[in-house]
Amino acid sequence: MGKSIDKMAVAAIRSLAIDEINRANSGHPGMALDAAPSLFALYRDHLVADPAHPDWPNRDRFVLSSGHASSLLYALLHVSGYQVSMDDLKSFRQLGSKTPGHPEVGHTPGVDATSGPLGQGVAQAVGMAIAEKAIRSQYPDGEKIMSHYTYCLCGDGDLQEGVVQEAVSLAGHLRLNKLIMIYDQNGSTLDGPTSDSLTESIKLRFLASEWNVLEVKNGNNVDKISSAIAKAKKSSVYPTLIIMKTVIGYGSANQGNHKTHGEPLGEEDGNHAKKVYGVTWDPFTVPEEVYALFKETFQARGAAAYAAYADQLAEYGKYHPEEQKTFLAALKREVPALPSRDYGDLAKEATRSSSGAMLALYRSVIPYCLGGSADVAGSTKTDVKGVKPFPEGTDMRYGIREFAMASAQNGILLHGGLISYCACFLVFSDYMKNAIRMAALERLPAIYLFTHDSLAVGEDGPTHQPIEQLTGLRATPNLNVFRPADAKEVEGAYRLSFASLSTPSAIVLSRQALPLLEKTDPKKVAKGAYPVLSPKRGSKADCTIIATGSEVSLAIEAAEELIKRGYVMEVISAPCLSLLEENPAYMNKLFSTPYAKRVSLEMGSTLGWGRYAKWNIGVNEFGASGKAEAVLDEYGFTPMKIADKIAYFLSKK
Amino acid sequence: MGKSIDKMAVAAIRSLAIDEINRANSGHPGMALDAAPSLFALYRDHLVADPAHPDWPNRDRFVLSSGHASSLLYALLHVSGYQVSMDDLKSFRQLGSKTPGHPEVGHTPGVDATSGPLGQGVAQAVGMAIAEKAIRSQYPDGEKIMSHYTYCLCGDGDLQEGVVQEAVSLAGHLRLNKLIMIYDQNGSTLDGPTSDSLTESIKLRFLASEWNVLEVKNGNNVDKISSAIAKAKKSSVYPTLIIMKTVIGYGSANQGNHKTHGEPLGEEDGNHAKKVYGVTWDPFTVPEEVYALFKETFQARGAAAYAAYADQLAEYGKYHPEEQKTFLAALKREVPALPSRDYGDLAKEATRSSSGAMLALYRSVIPYCLGGSADVAGSTKTDVKGVKPFPEGTDMRYGIREFAMASAQNGILLHGGLISYCACFLVFSDYMKNAIRMAALERLPAIYLFTHDSLAVGEDGPTHQPIEQLTGLRATPNLNVFRPADAKEVEGAYRLSFASLSTPSAIVLSRQALPLLEKTDPKKVAKGAYPVLSPKRGSKADCTIIATGSEVSLAIEAAEELIKRGYVMEVISAPCLSLLEENPAYMNKLFSTPYAKRVSLEMGSTLGWGRYAKWNIGVNEFGASGKAEAVLDEYGFTPMKIADKIAYFLSKK
Repeated sequence: MGKSIDKMAVAAIRSLAIDEINRANSGHPGMALDAAPSLFALYRDHLVADPAHPDWPNRDRFVLSSGHASSLLYALLHVSGYQVSMDDLKSFRQLGSKTPGHPEVGHTPGVDATSGPLGQGVAQAVGMAIAEKAIRSQYPDGEKIMSHYTYCLCGDGDLQEGVVQEAVSLAGHLRLNKLIMIYDQNGSTLDGPTSDSLTESIKLRFLASEWNVLEVKNGNNVDKISSAIAKAKKSSVYPTLIIMKTVIGYGSANQGNHKTHGEPLGEEDGNHAKKVYGVTWDPFTVPEEVYALFKETFQARGAAAYAAYADQLAEYGKYHPEEQKTFLAALKREVPALPSRDYGDLAKEATRSSSGAMLALYRSVIPYCLGGSADVAGSTKTDVKGVKPFPEGTDMRYGIREFAMASAQNGILLHGGLISYCACFLVFSDYMKNAIRMAALERLPAIYLFTHDSLAVGEDGPTHQPIEQLTGLRATPNLNVFRPADAKEVEGAYRLSFASLSTPSAIVLSRQALPLLEKTDPKKVAKGAYPVLSPKRGSKADCTIIATGSEVSLAIEAAEELIKRGYVMEVISAPCLSLLEENPAYMNKLFSTPYAKRVSLEMGSTLGWGRYAKWNIGVNEFGASGKAEAVLDEYGFTPMKIADKIAYFLSKK
Repeated sequence: MGKSIDKMAVAAIRSLAIDEINRANSGHPGMALDAAPSLFALYRDHLVADPAHPDWPNRDRFVLSSGHASSLLYALLHVSGYQVSMDDLKSFRQLGSKTPGHPEVGHTPGVDATSGPLGQGVAQAVGMAIAEKAIRSQYPDGEKIMSHYTYCLCGDGDLQEGVVQEAVSLAGHLRLNKLIMIYDQNGSTLDGPTSDSLTESIKLRFLASEWNVLEVKNGNNVDKISSAIAKAKKSSVYPTLIIMKTVIGYGSANQGNHKTHGEPLGEEDGNHAKKVYGVTWDPFTVPEEVYALFKETFQARGAAAYAAYADQLAEYGKYHPEEQKTFLAALKREVPALPSRDYGDLAKEATRSSSGAMLALYRSVIPYCLGGSADVAGSTKTDVKGVKPFPEGTDMRYGIREFAMASAQNGILLHGGLISYCACFLVFSDYMKNAIRMAALERLPAIYLFTHDSLAVGEDGPTHQPIEQLTGLRATPNLNVFRPADAKEVEGAYRLSFASLSTPSAIVLSRQALPLLEKTDPKKVAKGAYPVLSPKRGSKADCTIIATGSEVSLAIEAAEELIKRGYVMEVISAPCLSLLEENPAYMNKLFSTPYAKRVSLEMGSTLGWGRYAKWNIGVNEFGASGKAEAVLDEYGFTPMKIADKIAYFLSKK
């Protein structure tokens, strides 16, 4: 066996990748071919995972950050015993197949993360390593229940993305020594040689960022790669980067040329490459010896580890019964009975502060919370008293790295065992937008706390005053955007966000104090929208104002002015439009007025409100720096100005 | 004079910053106080700019990337002779003042860039240095018309942002030796000591990224700082980082503590600090000697340079009359008569290819175009034949750095003298979202070419299929989002984008081929929307379909099916909704049907379409990997399925 079986296995994996791509006539052979030996070495010798239990919590994680090399991953999953059949490989990139263009978690067994948007695979891997370390650190004898490695394969494309440097700097800072990243340095990007756009020293950059760096000069040398990984596993302080020099599209007649990056080899060149690898078998077949090799190595190791872990976890329960229960509940994301907040005689509160109060309350009953902010803990009220910084505690200090924060949070949630939130100003949700999208796509119950949610930010001016952010977030599928009107609605938003299993939540919060309203109700937040001011029994409203967040109290004040002027008014608070949309029957009877008698009121873009109301009051220009009251007055957000505007609308035919 | 006048000047600047913030009771004293000596050294000894001509094209540029230290910049602009009066300083952060919370370009003389969103100031400075080098390289004897430095002041917050590493890596790669960045290393961020979240070696990271690195150990030593800048100016290959060690909130009783970052010192601590500086004069006053110093140094130098440049430019015109004309036209962004495209017998074309054809056409008549993509030149069709890579030519190879690309483009446009475009896939506009917002806020005529604009991307799957991006972009103020239906509408979008002076344009383009439609018209794109299928004279439409991009031809096919079924149909192409909104009178008569008889059709989020049509056909979930035709069929985007859906809508009351 030895060398010749290794060669055969690598050839089989490469050969499958060629077949997948050629059959689909679509895909990216370049890296799929050159990185095969690395992944073979990883799966044969190191990765601890069990195809019979692909979601086993203490397995090693593997993220293919360069998601376009999916054909390689599927080939590997197939030969290593996952439920990815030869037929699945034959339907690579076809609608409904298990083998989509880029890896999708929850869709294909053995895929630990959705990847494709470059850079985010790396940041998700960093998040997984954070989760592993957090769980290990937070439980007594934590290494008994959580102790595994996180591996990631990335390419030049990933390393140019800023989110990677954010994540890398964070990983070094947090001493994530069980994170091992293989950098497939194939010298090519989609448009040409990497040197066309990247000439920096990646090695030096990672050293600067507090990583170990190892190098493997021949990316086809399986044993050297395996030794490097073995060495990386011994790191006791720093994460490790293994720079693996490869030749893009290895085996192709065009190897080394960027054209192999994104174009199928085709039959002729595919056969050429197979000859180079020594393939003697038919397309879409694998020699029995190769299956056998993975059974003896990867599968045997994984099955043994899985069994040992089961024993270990039972044993753990004897010494730490409560903690074992907590851990198992955390894995299932079972939330305990959540307490209600006592409002006492609270009259007014910024909803960012209401959020801070809820965080403190929930943290007191959920031991497996972890979260933090992008260096705005004080401003976003996420500095919960008594919670220590990671890894001693679960307060994350993400630094001024919004994108990596959100993307790492995806990794934390993909890992499991923790409830996670992260916070920054609403306007800077822009910086993390694609990671929020990824959370929605990966069906992760991420929680975003976005404060400073309107013009009322005041002095910081237009760069800090969100206008279009709410609209962009609301348009994202599978994302609940909450904009609570007061502390009670914040409680409702928290309840739903913490109980969510597969939908992320953005909770959008005010900087300024807002009155506690009479008719708001934490429970009604689940409906998405509900009346907070209704006409007296028997009378019919002349007009409905539908508003969110800080504009609900403003709407009520404007309505009161209009009532004085003789109008019959209705006000609806709409803390979550996506939840409203889930119940068309309820939505149809929500409004007591026809479309032409409805006014929306929100201090942001009016785009999107046309669905609910003919008249839309909002802000379709940038804000301005000034005292909050002055800015709000200038942009027309006073009860009197709103009342005048509505009276004018109602006067029109 | 000498030391004592320096000390007095620095004290005067710091004192003004304290007064501004205390009067406003809002602002960020920390860095404003500690970075004062650096900016003093820069303005006194190096920066070449003329307050009498603040927009002079060959001036040095200065970007305060840490925009929260705006009080310092305003103080400096005041003492150095810009039109920023003492009254302006007194109305710091007040509505309508010249001194908003964060610097705003076009609002305050002497402010070269809007900054505040961390990291982007650095990337904008990189863009300015690119523009300077591009102009210098593209014209014969280019150094006669363009030769200046770009300076930037940044802090720890900037350096944690990923966009900075993208920009820094790009700047090193592009050998922007005339870019000089001062890093105010005050050891503190908003939440605490920098070491809470950043422990990497910035020095090593910049060395890795091909920068010179200089260090100044005492950020109060004006002469040492000045010498470092002098040394940096001599760099002939690499950009330079000057690491300047400072103490945050220098002079405050809390100096060195992060609490000075974002909280006004107040009167007592302000007086304490002034005592430390040796201030003997009243608040909001400046000793005459300080004004005199700036007159003798900064102003004299700037006025002389301005005068010399005028002579030089006239001289240049003698030797290169054509080029001088071009340069002056470029500065004013005067576009020559733009040619129309000859469509010959073109029947079908992907609009990304139509875009490529327009780029080639416009580049052939506009010599001062510069642009490129984030490593997707082939896919976005921005690889214009014959254009050489920067700096030899004007083809930018930005690498896989979308955010820095968009942000650098803002810097290029702030600099002036070039028309700039950049390209990537629509879904990855997410990565650059806040830079797009900044372009809109800074009123820059940026051009974004966003291809692969829908589910029709096909095999690459949901990570690459945009859903919510169009909505988010359309909600952004002062941004024209074009989604052309065919090659002719692409031409219309190009015409408007290239002629724009203060509004950025996103041109959203298909991967798949689209038929050239009979009734589309480049000129009508300016209207925002117009009919492409109308009922016969005398008949009244039963239904209007309003569609954009690839869905316009689909709408026509569906309408033809419905016509067969006996309906009278109208189809409107809406390539740019923001332009439509500019003309309410036209919009009111555009539709020949009432609201309840209108259907919108776009392969993306329906949010936003409720304004135009009661019935909205779109995609409010994520896409799927598969052949484009299969995906479109699955999601209902075939003429027959659309026709059936519309017939159903029309059957409802």
